[in-house]
This record gives sequence, structure tokens and C-alpha cells, in this order.
Amino acid sequence: MSVHLARGTRDFLPNEAARRHHVIGLLREVFARHGFEPLETPAFERIETLTGKYGDEGQKLMFKILKRGAGAERGECDLALRYDLTVPLARVIAMNPGLRMPFKRWQAAPVWRAERPARGRFREFWQCDADIVGTTEPLADAQCLAVAADALRTLGFERFTVRLNDRRLLRAMAQHAGADEGLEIKLLVAVDKLDKIGRSGVDEALAGLGLEQEQRDRVWGVLDLAGDDDAILQGLGAQLPGDQVAEAIATLRQVLQLAAELGVDPAQLRVDPTLARGLDYYTGPVFEITVEEPKIGSIAGGGRYDGLVGIFGKKAVPAVGVALGLERILLVMQELDMFGPRPDVAQVMVAVYDASLRAEATRVATAFRGAAVRTDLFVGSDSLRSQLKYAHAKQIPWVALVGPEEAAAGQVSLKEMATGQQHAMALSDAIARVQGDEAQSS
Amino acid sequence: MSVHLARGTRDFLPNEAARRHHVIGLLREVFARHGFEPLETPAFERIETLTGKYGDEGQKLMFKILKRGAGAERGECDLALRYDLTVPLARVIAMNPGLRMPFKRWQAAPVWRAERPARGRFREFWQCDADIVGTTEPLADAQCLAVAADALRTLGFERFTVRLNDRRLLRAMAQHAGADEGLEIKLLVAVDKLDKIGRSGVDEALAGLGLEQEQRDRVWGVLDLAGDDDAILQGLGAQLPGDQVAEAIATLRQVLQLAAELGVDPAQLRVDPTLARGLDYYTGPVFEITVEEPKIGSIAGGGRYDGLVGIFGKKAVPAVGVALGLERILLVMQELDMFGPRPDVAQVMVAVYDASLRAEATRVATAFRGAAVRTDLFVGSDSLRSQLKYAHAKQIPWVALVGPEEAAAGQVSLKEMATGQQHAMALSDAIARVQGDEAQSS
Repeated sequence: MSVHLARGTRDFLPNEAARRHHVIGLLREVFARHGFEPLETPAFERIETLTGKYGDEGQKLMFKILKRGAGAERGECDLALRYDLTVPLARVIAMNPGLRMPFKRWQAAPVWRAERPARGRFREFWQCDADIVGTTEPLADAQCLAVAADALRTLGFERFTVRLNDRRLLRAMAQHAGADEGLEIKLLVAVDKLDKIGRSGVDEALAGLGLEQEQRDRVWGVLDLAGDDDAILQGLGAQLPGDQVAEAIATLRQVLQLAAELGVDPAQLRVDPTLARGLDYYTGPVFEITVEEPKIGSIAGGGRYDGLVGIFGKKAVPAVGVALGLERILLVMQELDMFGPRPDVAQVMVAVYDASLRAEATRVATAFRGAAVRTDLFVGSDSLRSQLKYAHAKQIPWVALVGPEEAAAGQVSLKEMATGQQHAMALSDAIARVQGDEAQSS
Repeated sequence: MSVHLARGTRDFLPNEAARRHHVIGLLREVFARHGFEPLETPAFERIETLTGKYGDEGQKLMFKILKRGAGAERGECDLALRYDLTVPLARVIAMNPGLRMPFKRWQAAPVWRAERPARGRFREFWQCDADIVGTTEPLADAQCLAVAADALRTLGFERFTVRLNDRRLLRAMAQHAGADEGLEIKLLVAVDKLDKIGRSGVDEALAGLGLEQEQRDRVWGVLDLAGDDDAILQGLGAQLPGDQVAEAIATLRQVLQLAAELGVDPAQLRVDPTLARGLDYYTGPVFEITVEEPKIGSIAGGGRYDGLVGIFGKKAVPAVGVALGLERILLVMQELDMFGPRPDVAQVMVAVYDASLRAEATRVATAFRGAAVRTDLFVGSDSLRSQLKYAHAKQIPWVALVGPEEAAAGQVSLKEMATGQQHAMALSDAIARVQGDEAQSS
């Protein structure tokens, strides 16, 4: 009999599960440090809540749940698994008018999309979002930047860049190039590929959209702006017309300054006119965080989207948010060996000499646990050799044993697995030894 | 426009989400202290993995997922949401033959059942299981008992009772009463209701199953056994025939002794011949933990089930486990006000005097965060009065403010929300004050 996982899903065995818990635990602390509050929403929503929110492509990729009872025979669906965490947030905002604004929430949870599975692409994957709902203040945008940067630093990322742009500048650029509204998103999608397909690739794509040389030159005039942030912002102001442009530039200046005051290293902040983020719901500042080393690209991104959170209510609700690329972050941390020793692994395994000394072993384990030491008491009648192999496989650093001699002397033998050294000592000394080891390594 | 949650599901707004995170975080520590390792499995499984594992009733309550593409039009399903955490565990065991045995895993995660929603009954709810797979040693059963008792104590439950029985004794009782195998489970289901429907109710139910007076007397002879554990075990041995009975009694004696050595208060352990746990997959010791105060019944239960984990492989895999009634535990903790102050709530809110002093506020917030103080920086141009209301609503204990006077003096005003007292001081003093407050309260 053979049994399989559902396609595109994963089990996380202990080593990996522990790492995921550890990372999410650290993120929880960072979000709390920045005053973001946790929210949990159900795995599935009424199908009409999700329908029409993700475009044609999203509609196809949604996992729909069959009705129970009579509707099942007709193949009807009434529910669907959540596709992201943003539409559920919008629903929560609409259903809870008493929520105090601004509402700063974070949520780390799985979402489901029936994508064709590929390396690093799964049908169940975690998203980790932090959003501030209910205010248009640039300070909110800056706080999203700051919490993301703090999260990455806390996880051990040091060299990263926060690239900033504004959707209004991108729109002005498209208009300046003579692209009408229908063409705008396509133009941004093409620009968004600059890193991947290069200057000539983007130029070809723009030509493919029907942009003449002169129109493309206007796009390149913006994308090619260089220099420090101030020079770029001045260049944007000089080239692009309209009130929205002046507003966007003023906003970006504020966000840059506030983010720096919130602890983001100014050397890591950069205005980048080529940053497009091709999603059509952004309305203001957009940003992306890119790790320089290794070259894996963006690991967080976000921006202001003042039109989306209000979709289920009567009035628009401004919002800005950041999504940490949790799966990608975990992958990179694993590849770069950024995890320390597993923080949940047992500090000591108590071996069982034989059935006649099982009670001794049990009491020793209880004493360790009483001193808050993470303790695995071996279960089974395996040989001592096999028990030591178990401890080694689980990377447990110490093994405690009460054999006949130790029992007679009222002692316990403590073996350090890394060195193989073993000494008999009083139980209290063994506990102190194991505790001291943990204190030292943390 | 109105929007709703899917029936039987819940959002957890910040207060409740924080409590759930806190409880699960504590459980994580307890499981690690006992050498249990975390496992994560996907929300959905291939439908054939789950089909036939939960009986007719379970089959009806499963949430099935429609195929994508052509199969969707025919109403075909290929996936279903997990119904519990045990069948996924069995799948993991079958798919990972290299897993080191005994495998001690815990998992806390949502499961989904299309039950008719009622008070305290939901369609999405969390289970929290700890199991030891791969050994028949009674020490494993005792460890499951001990980890559950430690978990409850850690969460703040003090007065609870662990009731123990053995499925082999229940079977012998049924046979002794002349119930054939087909009747056995029905008999146990009836006995399981003793707490709810009383002695006469159970007797009626047994009569309804066709048991004559003499047969029922034999059942009551067992159920009515009283005295200390030793007396009850002796009584069981005297009344019930068969090798299995002697084995079960010997096992229970071992489990009782080992559980006590593992730190379970012997006064809280009790053999209870009326404990039936009507699930048909148990094969050995079964147990339930009941809270005495308040009278809410069982909040954890489990037992040995040596036939289930091997279903996807070629050979039987022994296993014993405990399930903590997480939703019930959370409900009781909420009703009994067992939660302390929210551990993730911001310790200080930095208010913004006006736009001209926003940069000051931002720097103050960054300084607090740099000292690992959970800090909410107010976003918005609300009046100070409105900002204070925000802090009050979020139960933030301190508010820091830099107004023109404080700015001129290089100070910050710190207001204690509970008393309303406010003093200007150096930023470093304000930080020390807020930190000291946290240290004191924890």
C-alpha cells in the first residue's frame, strides 16, 4: 500500500518544523515591539467573499470546497480556501466597525493556491503580513518599512536594501509616455522585469506594447535617473507633470526621513524609479527589500493600497502593508545555515539501564524537568548503544544514566555527546552542568 | 453590501489571538521539556488518504475540495481538509521509514469538520496532540499522561483528576456480560454516558441493547467497584477472566507507578472502571483528565491505539497519545479569567504632539524599541485626547510624549495610564521606568 502527500504540499518533520516555529516566534516578538497586534482568520471563506478579488488567474487557482448534502451531488461549492491574508483582513474590517483605528495587525498563516508546483513553489505556503489600516499618514508607511527591516535584522539578515517608489510616479510616467489607463499595468509589468530581462528586454517589451521610440525614450528618461535620493526625486519632479507627482515626491521624502528615524539605516534606503510592483491595487508608496548577499532578490515588499480594504464596506479605508516572503526567507536561512542549534531540542536524554532501574531513570528525568531542563526519557528496552544512537540522531548534547554502580552511590553518570566524556556525579551537579551549558550557548 | 464569515468559523481579534498564541507558546515549551518534537502537516490530504478512516459519520462531515480544471465540471473531488491529526501522523510514519523510533511528536493545528455549529462547537477548531509512536512500553503511556498533566499545570489548572482504565478490561467486561463483538462498542458508548445520564439511564440503555438483568448485573459488578486503586484492580482481576485481563492490570499498575515518578501527583491519579472512551481504535490503557473546579468535565484524553498508525504500511506500529482539548481549555481559561495581562501588548505608546514634533516622537519610539521595549508609535493627526483613548482601549500601560517644553528641555513626559500621573524626565529614565514595570509584573 502506498500513500502520498497531496501535490504541492509538504510535511515539516521536527528539524524543519522547529525552525519554522522559531522564526515565527521571533517575528511575533518583532511585531509586538512595533505595536502590531495579532489577528487570526479561518482557513476558508464564503466563496462570494473571495470571488472576483484576484482576477481571472486567481479565480482559477482557488481551492473550492464542495457543499455538503444535496448540493454536493450537483457539484456546487459554497466555500473556498483563502488565497491571501488581505481579503480576509478587509472582511474583518467590514465586520468589526468598532475596531480602533489605526488598526495595526500582523498575521502569519498558510494560504492555498492551485499553482503548478515547481521548485520553491507550493500549493500550501505561509504568508506573513503586517498592515496599518485606517490612516493615510506617511508615518504608517514608514512604520511598515521599519518593522520589516527590524524583522530581517532580527532573523540575522544584515545586508539588504529597501527600494522605494510611488505608484503615482509610475502612473505619471506611463501617462507622460502616452500610455492610456489600459496600457499602464502592462507597461509596469514590463518595467518590473528589468532585473530579469535587462534594458533591451524591457525596451522590446515596451515596443511590443506599441510604444514608439519617442514614447519609450520618455520611459527611459525616468528609469535612467541616477544619483542620490535627492537627485532622483528632483529629476522625477522635473520630468513628470501633475499635482500627484509633487504629492508623491513629498510623501517619499517624508517616508525616507521617518523610516530613518525609526531605525532603518539610511544607507539601506534608496529611491528607485524602476521599482514597479506590477499589482494594480497600489495607490501610493511601494517598496521592496532585496538581499544583496546571496543574490536571491526580493524577500519582502509592500506599499499603500487605499482602495482594497474598504471593498466590503461603504467607504474607502486607507491601508498600507508589508508582506515578508516567509517561505523564501526560510529557504535562504536554511541554505545559508543561519539557524543556530534547535532551541527546542532536548538538553539531556535520560537513558534507561534496564527494567530494574527504570524507576531511577524516571525520577532523574523528573528532577531535570523540575529544574526546567528539556529532558527526553528514553522509552523502550533498547541496548544502551542503541539509546546513545537515538540521542546522537536527535542531537541531544547530554545523556544521563543511572546504572547499578551509580544507583549504589546515589549518583548519576553524565555523558557529553560531543566529546564522549563521562563522569559520575550528584544529580544536582548534573543538572547544574546541563543548565550551565545552555546558558553559555545562548 | 454585507459580508459574513463562513458558518461555524471564527475570527480571533487581537485580544483572543494573543491569548491563543500565548497558550500554544506555553504548550510548546512543555512539549519540549518532555522531549516531544514538533511536526507540521498540510491542511488537506488526498481524499483517498482520509476516506474510510472516520466511519460513515466522519465521511459525511469531511470538507471535500473540488478538482481544478475539467474534473470540476463533473463535481469531482481529489482532496479533503484534514479531519484530525492522527491519520496525517499515520501517513507521515508510512512515508518516512527513516524516522528514529520511538518517535515523540506533538502538533497543534486546526482541523475541519462540517458539524452543525452550536455553542462551543465549530467547523474549524484546533487540536493539540502528543503521541509516542513505535513502542509498546508502558513508560510511553506514562509519559503521555505526564506531559498532559504538566501542560495543564503550566496553564494554571491545579485541581484535576487523571482517570485511567484499559480497553482490554472493558472488552473483558463486555464479554463477561455476554456481549458479542458487535455489541461491545455500543455497550461502551452507553457506559461512557454514566456521568451524563446516570446509573438508571445507563441501565436502561443496556437493557435497550438487549442485555438481560443478569448480564447487566455483571456489568454493574465491574462498574460499581470502589476503593483505592489497588482494591479496584484486585476486584477487576477477581471478576474478569482471561490472560488479557491480567496483562491489562499489570500494565495499569506500571503506568500508575511511572506516571507518579514522572511527577504526576499520585493523589490525582485514579483507576476508574467506568471510564469507557467509546472510540473503537483503543487497544490498551485509556485515560481522561477531568477538571474538578469548575465542573466542565474532561479537558484531555487519550490512550494506546496499536492498530491505527500502521494502516498505511505493511506492519502494525504501536502508538499511544494524548489529545488536549485546546478549544475547551481556552474557553475555560477565558471564563475563569486565568489569563494574565496580554504578554504582547505594547508597554508604551509614544504620542505625537503635532506634526512639527513628529520626528521627536519617532526618535523616542526608536529608542524604546532599541531597549527591547514593545512600543506603539501613534499614527495619525488625532488630538492628544484621542491618542490617549487609543492607548487606553489597547490597555497600553504607559504613554510617552514630547511636547514643546519637553523638546526644549531634552526630556520626555511619561504618563502612567492607570494612575494618570505624569512626569517629565530624561529619555533613559523613562525607558528604565517602563522596563522596571514589566520586570515587576512578570
